[in-house]
Amino acid sequence: MQNFVFHNKTKVYFGKGQIENLADEISRFGKKALLVYGGGSIKRIGLYDDVIKQLEKAKMTVYELGGVEPNPRHTTVNKGAALCKKEGIDVLLAVGGGSTIDATKAIAAAAKYDGDDCWDLITHKASVKETLPFLSVLTLAATGSEMDGGCVISNIETNEKFGYFAPDNNPDVSFLDPTYTYSVSAYQTASGSADIMSHIFDVAYFSMQDQMDMLKRIQEEVLKTVIKYAPKAIEKPDDYEARANLMWASSWALNDFLYDGLSQSTVCHAMEHELSAFYDITHGHGLAILTPRWLSYVLNEQTAPCIKRFGVNVMGVDENLPLMDGAKTAIKKLEEFFYETLGLKSKLSDLGIDDKNFSVMAKKACRAKGVLKGFTDLTPLDVEAIYRMCL
Amino acid sequence: MQNFVFHNKTKVYFGKGQIENLADEISRFGKKALLVYGGGSIKRIGLYDDVIKQLEKAKMTVYELGGVEPNPRHTTVNKGAALCKKEGIDVLLAVGGGSTIDATKAIAAAAKYDGDDCWDLITHKASVKETLPFLSVLTLAATGSEMDGGCVISNIETNEKFGYFAPDNNPDVSFLDPTYTYSVSAYQTASGSADIMSHIFDVAYFSMQDQMDMLKRIQEEVLKTVIKYAPKAIEKPDDYEARANLMWASSWALNDFLYDGLSQSTVCHAMEHELSAFYDITHGHGLAILTPRWLSYVLNEQTAPCIKRFGVNVMGVDENLPLMDGAKTAIKKLEEFFYETLGLKSKLSDLGIDDKNFSVMAKKACRAKGVLKGFTDLTPLDVEAIYRMCL
Repeated sequence: MQNFVFHNKTKVYFGKGQIENLADEISRFGKKALLVYGGGSIKRIGLYDDVIKQLEKAKMTVYELGGVEPNPRHTTVNKGAALCKKEGIDVLLAVGGGSTIDATKAIAAAAKYDGDDCWDLITHKASVKETLPFLSVLTLAATGSEMDGGCVISNIETNEKFGYFAPDNNPDVSFLDPTYTYSVSAYQTASGSADIMSHIFDVAYFSMQDQMDMLKRIQEEVLKTVIKYAPKAIEKPDDYEARANLMWASSWALNDFLYDGLSQSTVCHAMEHELSAFYDITHGHGLAILTPRWLSYVLNEQTAPCIKRFGVNVMGVDENLPLMDGAKTAIKKLEEFFYETLGLKSKLSDLGIDDKNFSVMAKKACRAKGVLKGFTDLTPLDVEAIYRMCL
Repeated sequence: MQNFVFHNKTKVYFGKGQIENLADEISRFGKKALLVYGGGSIKRIGLYDDVIKQLEKAKMTVYELGGVEPNPRHTTVNKGAALCKKEGIDVLLAVGGGSTIDATKAIAAAAKYDGDDCWDLITHKASVKETLPFLSVLTLAATGSEMDGGCVISNIETNEKFGYFAPDNNPDVSFLDPTYTYSVSAYQTASGSADIMSHIFDVAYFSMQDQMDMLKRIQEEVLKTVIKYAPKAIEKPDDYEARANLMWASSWALNDFLYDGLSQSTVCHAMEHELSAFYDITHGHGLAILTPRWLSYVLNEQTAPCIKRFGVNVMGVDENLPLMDGAKTAIKKLEEFFYETLGLKSKLSDLGIDDKNFSVMAKKACRAKGVLKGFTDLTPLDVEAIYRMCL
């Protein structure tokens, strides 16, 4: 069991209609706000109008940055940071899913960075020190960005997608109203759910390191929550109970509630970031394709107990099965959940991806150290083999 | 499912040797510190010396307030607050269990209160506004005070024991090193474990209100954690895994991780506070005596499903039992856990308590409103009947 530090400064307003508290909260941070959002969905569901009303009530001067991309780009972050510097913005407000919140988080840091290019921060050439305060209004249960200090940004000039975690870069306040996710499509609900599960898998669950028993059990309950409610939300998009459980699960899966001080690469995330950097695919879908193949690839006598435990405690696998059979059945049930229950396509080739960049992507995934440290350590050759299993 | 606000500012250092970070953390808050502690146990285990070394390293001017009582008294809080005002204390440091942390929390508030008597704050005649910053070093897994804004203080002149929750009265930083609990006696380990479980029972688990499914499941995992590790810690006091799980469980049980916006009386706590106000008994032991009798008293067709679910999911009761049988078996197993596995005496008479004050205590437990709102609403007559069941 490792030592750890837990600190999460984000104040969360959870539930229907909590946006009513936005005016009071944002006015604590100043008078000039930059409103950041993605495509038009927040206008279609009426959220944009509700937010503007609150900003007017708070008598804020509002600047806007719309059009944040699904895999947000460093050029967009740079544009936002330049605007903050020029106009003397006091506080940022992200309204959207993880991409919008990630971009806003990076703008909050870049606006206080002396250089002109946020890519220095994203690639750890410079470190995040001071940040602008920011708030978020969440519209998609997936990334956990609404309650952590992490962000992932893409550079399409170099086909790179990297991120950082900065302890003080959490949103100051986040509004989590499950009704804002009623309009999320079945596909995005499925992909977001895979992303939530992958955070738990990648950060901690699949690990050879010793973890606190209580936290491991709770990881299992959050996984079971997603498995129970994602199909319900797909079946009935305005199922409040389902949307609420998924939304709070998304925050829990990456805000350090669930973890002690593990140190391992988030292996599937590292492999997936190359996929979406090269092909701009939906992150959670990439994770759903990679994860079961990765588990099959790393299955051996040492990893099997953890995989079988996942099967028994989360996927309903019979605990009396022999070790390797139990682990294989667990992986098969996870595949069934992603590709049948959630309806996600199971192959990279289904997304138009072939093997031509696999070798380069595998090397990039392993980065400078040449190896992904995790459940089992992976070299670029291992990563390439896993990509091929996904074709 | 209720709306809720989640905000927990406490930064936690968890694990062996984390005290090494105390100097850096406390020096952020100023130069004059008041060190608050209880009896001599922190000196016996060497913790006092380690703390003093850190305060010297941080070049703090240190004042001391020792001798905080197991049920901390308002007179002690007043003494501490007067010292803070006189000496211009910048920051408080509690070293001990929940009693010491509760007292320190109340001193932090009373030191910034215009009046002379903290009892005004404890009884809500005045509200907690500003507070001094404070840190804690925990030595007992029980109350959760190390990570919340609540405290309970006793007035022995009036036989009253009351408390408050103030959102900003959390410790700023808490140090949770499970090795500091190695010297906790079997009796205090058992009582503390009952207290942890009772927080979950009382705040949320036993309730007719609709709760978020994910949180209800996680409440069950934390309860199972206590049931698994309390006997191990009693059996082998220096079992790090057991002490670590109990310690983090104690913080989780009352820091709002586990709850959405329920509003109900913490019924057993209200009943127990009268017991320890009148008889100065160990709080967790009082709870262990009261809880199963309370469950038996409120058992009916409406409450049985929740009690049976507790039995099935937490206590290993056969889910095929009929509803009322399942619920009764759950209560029986909880009694066995408290009185056989943990070895706590099962009756108030074992603690020298008779029925002479029951009528007054029952009225006081129901306070101004004359009723305890909860799983089922309890009048003073109900409370008196429950006390009698405990004789």
